[in-house]
Amino acid sequence: MSGRLTVVGLGPGDPDLLTPEASRALAESEVFFGYAGYLERISPRPDQQRVVSDNREEADRARAALEQAAAGWKVAMVTGGDPGVFAMAAAVCEQIEAGRAEWRRLDVVIMPGITAMLALAARVGAPLGHDFCVISLSDNLKPWEVVERRLDAAAAGGFAIALYNPRSQARPWQLGAAFERLRRHLPPATAVVFGRAVRRPEEAISVTTLDEADPASADMATCVIVGSAATRVVSRPGLPPLVYSPRMDAEAAR
Amino acid sequence: MSGRLTVVGLGPGDPDLLTPEASRALAESEVFFGYAGYLERISPRPDQQRVVSDNREEADRARAALEQAAAGWKVAMVTGGDPGVFAMAAAVCEQIEAGRAEWRRLDVVIMPGITAMLALAARVGAPLGHDFCVISLSDNLKPWEVVERRLDAAAAGGFAIALYNPRSQARPWQLGAAFERLRRHLPPATAVVFGRAVRRPEEAISVTTLDEADPASADMATCVIVGSAATRVVSRPGLPPLVYSPRMDAEAAR
Repeated sequence: MSGRLTVVGLGPGDPDLLTPEASRALAESEVFFGYAGYLERISPRPDQQRVVSDNREEADRARAALEQAAAGWKVAMVTGGDPGVFAMAAAVCEQIEAGRAEWRRLDVVIMPGITAMLALAARVGAPLGHDFCVISLSDNLKPWEVVERRLDAAAAGGFAIALYNPRSQARPWQLGAAFERLRRHLPPATAVVFGRAVRRPEEAISVTTLDEADPASADMATCVIVGSAATRVVSRPGLPPLVYSPRMDAEAAR
Repeated sequence: MSGRLTVVGLGPGDPDLLTPEASRALAESEVFFGYAGYLERISPRPDQQRVVSDNREEADRARAALEQAAAGWKVAMVTGGDPGVFAMAAAVCEQIEAGRAEWRRLDVVIMPGITAMLALAARVGAPLGHDFCVISLSDNLKPWEVVERRLDAAAAGGFAIALYNPRSQARPWQLGAAFERLRRHLPPATAVVFGRAVRRPEEAISVTTLDEADPASADMATCVIVGSAATRVVSRPGLPPLVYSPRMDAEAAR
């Protein structure tokens, strides 16, 4: 087989954060698969095909891309952020395991990207500067009780927490419930950072506290970082505050 | 003040993973600060100065860089991976909070990079494809009991786990102790991935199980990913196995 499937992380959307290898993969691919919102970010040449799919149809999209690569095409599956963080790499692996034997012999390359939490953290300081957890609030693929248990474990364990998929039209209450859950473990003044469309023209970032955090500040394009009890907010004259989690955390100082 | 401090994430070391904005920042800086191992990766022009420091002296290095930026220079603090993940961004924020008032007015820009766990995960599949925790095993800045408590919380909570700073000459026993701790919670067959010098010429990656994981496989240049109980290993004829954490995990299926 001469085909190849490359799973490309586009990063947050700013071309300044697209890795050189991802740029090259986009240039060398013959067919692009992806959610419409990500395919819009690249500009295919007339000789490059696009297969646009809805955001929900990840298994179907992965199978179709594998099929096309197995037929000998150079296929790119494009995804925002990093393909390995709540994105398409796991869906592709799932289909390789479940699918046709020849898919296991395919040349599959996964190219990492700047995932949303790293782009957001860099914008505000270093809120993930010490141990942290990364949790998707989507309960499409896991029961809400599992999410709650993980929020408990993360907050009680002293981790900072990055929340992906915090809120959508179909999942309007989950982020509020998550904040409620975290308030059981964390002080009211714990730093919370909302980052919407980070590193895109419509970027909006706000820093608040767990006490005052409003779930309505988030949507599908938002990443939320909740600090640990040790996370600091440093005010700066004429500049946005810095938010960081110290390398030596409060628990260590006890 | 016309000075500026840019904290630049170099990524894993492969220029193919250096972001365009980081490349440009390196070209535009007048003075580089950093650990010798990272400064070796860039090639300063004759008109660019380098201030090399030992890996341990992070607070001193941050202060010196802030001082130089406050004096009007364009300063780059270079760091491997992402500056916000167990790297220099938190140290710089700490010194801004603790230091001279004028440092709070400085133009400080943090540029994200591909951190080791994302580079390693992409090489093997998608082991961080579902909820995960990120823990430094260094007990220089926190007591070992805190590390143990976090390992317990992560494993019992069903998270995959990325371990940074797993082992060094000064910290020879911590990784073995961490594996012992994780074995209390996770099945012997749980996937473990060692990635040494990922995306550099001397890259070495191995996939094993928690039962058989040998701490001696790791050193300072290694990132270790421990799967959750749901993480899958898919064998492939003539290719390395794929390791991935399903989007719908085992707990969700119960």
